[in-house]
Amino acid sequence: MAVGLNEPPVLRPVPGVRLGVVAAGLRKPGRPDLVLMSLAAGSRAVAVFTRNAFRAAPVRVAEAHLQAATPRYLVINTGFANAGTGEQGQRDAEASCREVADLGGCSPEAVLPFSTGVIGEPLPMDRLIPGIADAFQCLEVEGWAAAADAIRTTDTVAKGYSEVIEELDGAILTGITKGSGMIRPDMATMLAFLATDLPATEPVLDAALRRAVDGSFNRITVDGDTSTNDAAVLVSTHTGHSAPLKSTDDPRFPAFAAAVERACTALAQAIVRDAEGATRFVTLHVSGGRDEAECEQVAFTIAHSPLVKTALFAGDPNWGRILAAVGRAGIDGLDLTGVTIHLGEVCIVRGGEPAVDYTEEQGAAVMAESEVTIHVALGRGDAEATVWTSDLSYDYVRINAEYRS
Amino acid sequence: MAVGLNEPPVLRPVPGVRLGVVAAGLRKPGRPDLVLMSLAAGSRAVAVFTRNAFRAAPVRVAEAHLQAATPRYLVINTGFANAGTGEQGQRDAEASCREVADLGGCSPEAVLPFSTGVIGEPLPMDRLIPGIADAFQCLEVEGWAAAADAIRTTDTVAKGYSEVIEELDGAILTGITKGSGMIRPDMATMLAFLATDLPATEPVLDAALRRAVDGSFNRITVDGDTSTNDAAVLVSTHTGHSAPLKSTDDPRFPAFAAAVERACTALAQAIVRDAEGATRFVTLHVSGGRDEAECEQVAFTIAHSPLVKTALFAGDPNWGRILAAVGRAGIDGLDLTGVTIHLGEVCIVRGGEPAVDYTEEQGAAVMAESEVTIHVALGRGDAEATVWTSDLSYDYVRINAEYRS
Repeated sequence: MAVGLNEPPVLRPVPGVRLGVVAAGLRKPGRPDLVLMSLAAGSRAVAVFTRNAFRAAPVRVAEAHLQAATPRYLVINTGFANAGTGEQGQRDAEASCREVADLGGCSPEAVLPFSTGVIGEPLPMDRLIPGIADAFQCLEVEGWAAAADAIRTTDTVAKGYSEVIEELDGAILTGITKGSGMIRPDMATMLAFLATDLPATEPVLDAALRRAVDGSFNRITVDGDTSTNDAAVLVSTHTGHSAPLKSTDDPRFPAFAAAVERACTALAQAIVRDAEGATRFVTLHVSGGRDEAECEQVAFTIAHSPLVKTALFAGDPNWGRILAAVGRAGIDGLDLTGVTIHLGEVCIVRGGEPAVDYTEEQGAAVMAESEVTIHVALGRGDAEATVWTSDLSYDYVRINAEYRS
Repeated sequence: MAVGLNEPPVLRPVPGVRLGVVAAGLRKPGRPDLVLMSLAAGSRAVAVFTRNAFRAAPVRVAEAHLQAATPRYLVINTGFANAGTGEQGQRDAEASCREVADLGGCSPEAVLPFSTGVIGEPLPMDRLIPGIADAFQCLEVEGWAAAADAIRTTDTVAKGYSEVIEELDGAILTGITKGSGMIRPDMATMLAFLATDLPATEPVLDAALRRAVDGSFNRITVDGDTSTNDAAVLVSTHTGHSAPLKSTDDPRFPAFAAAVERACTALAQAIVRDAEGATRFVTLHVSGGRDEAECEQVAFTIAHSPLVKTALFAGDPNWGRILAAVGRAGIDGLDLTGVTIHLGEVCIVRGGEPAVDYTEEQGAAVMAESEVTIHVALGRGDAEATVWTSDLSYDYVRINAEYRS
């Protein structure tokens, strides 16, 4: 079902990162569901996490561990989110880290746990613990593609990104992500793991990651539901030959930040292209706002409207629903006579009224494509924002009605 | 598909109100689609309208007319919302009023126009104008049931309410409403028309209507989409024999306000029971908040979650999705250990964790019913709020994907 999304490109190994992927039989037998990521000594890592008040146990543990130590291992499971699992969930996340630490010869605080899957059911520790030992046996630098495959839940396609940053001595940046539903990252993301061999300090990594996430994972929505487990991690293994990036004032920082943003944008868009039941990939571009926040507000209001989303599914250029969504977005003192809406290149609303030269045939032609852009110009300022979303189909309902069955 | 909703009860005539219902062939031939409501001289009326910034032409005209004169006629059409229709829409709404005024012998300002249906297409004036003349020919006091039927769009059932207010000398209160999708009234409602013969001044009617709407139409949601045409009207024909209600300090006011609230609540719930594709009627009760606003915010966040709504459709007691929605509702400083969630009478979450004695069988038994109550106790105050909503089914997608085809 993924819209314009193929299997990920070749994912270049990042010197200093090895991945072990196993089928631990956590939820279903025979399906790869456990990833161990080993980081070279000297690596640095930063992360952003979900702002959902109900944070999963692994999110709480990973955040605490990141503050206490420099990570050496990430352990990621699918099938179970380990969210809403109370004290037991906390103990299970910590026990997973201890097992990795024992086998890897580091402190438990140097291990970051991540989980995704069904909320509210305890981790099957009797299968997870042996799985960790198995994963240690198969660590390899070429494991990125297998890891991208293993962290999927309802994702139909593995998602990854890889580039050689030519401007930065050929440093490598590779990342993977997962996510398909419960997608409305709020200052965070679904699971995403990026690594580079370019030496960079935590403050530099943090600045690059936050900037990139704001313009990518924080600008996508499938269903408006923010997950309890969202996390994005950026690692520098410090194995590259460049001098370390120690400050955002370093003249090389913009090139690095741009590369991280390209990676995050590609991964975030991949999530929307593979959204549950999606038949269309929709770009919402709102310009002419007084500030970016109000542009974002209008874009997300359109993106969350079930009526707009079902019209997109039907390929129906029902611009009245777009207009109604703009109208209820809560923009103070919005003057309708300044509002213009384009569907692709076709002007459908001008000055708050149907464009005089618009015909349904023009709108239908745009909606016949699997990739649709909606531009809304508010006509009251210079700010703009872009949000990506999917349509609402029978399959979204089916996938989410059947998720636990 | 309506959940626990039969045809409306007997709708008692309100002395002073006559209704004419005709099939003007506006969108489909042979279907009643035009209602003329005639009010006795001396009637008083108040209304609340949508807060959507894109207000339909009839909403703008009705509001202006209400300020300029005392209404004698309401003219209501289905099939076309006359929203997003620009200057032409404004002229058409005014022309409809002039036609009614000419035939009824009143000023155009004494006529209130209402429209519901597809947004963005002009009113078919060539059929509407003759329809108005026909409606004058069939005005009758018994027309309420036919009017409730005629104002429907995707509604599967006509919706009405009627009572004799015993405490108030047997005054009659009768109302009708329509609405099924694009339902998330924001300080207003879908179309609702209520009338009483109890003499009451505008300030009294206004106080009673606003209070009632806040606890009824403003507490329902189907899909979070606020319509461009929402309106609720309360008429007093002053034909009753009681002394006029002139002040909210009148000792009879509480009984009147309570009756209006009963009527609005019944009509609002009827809309949710007949929500597009609904298979379940869901009551969300949030208590223990610091103020009503935060309780409402949590209730609406759950009510708008596509993941909760599809779980409800599936009859799946997936409490993790409810918990995730509470967590992303944006309640400042929410302490999870104080949160308790009940599904019907079954405690599913206590102190932010799964209740120890909870079993999936208990949850499944509650979800097997067509009427489900979800209680969320926030444990941080004394405020509470109730919101009613529906589930998200294949039929919601079908109805809205096919709406214009």
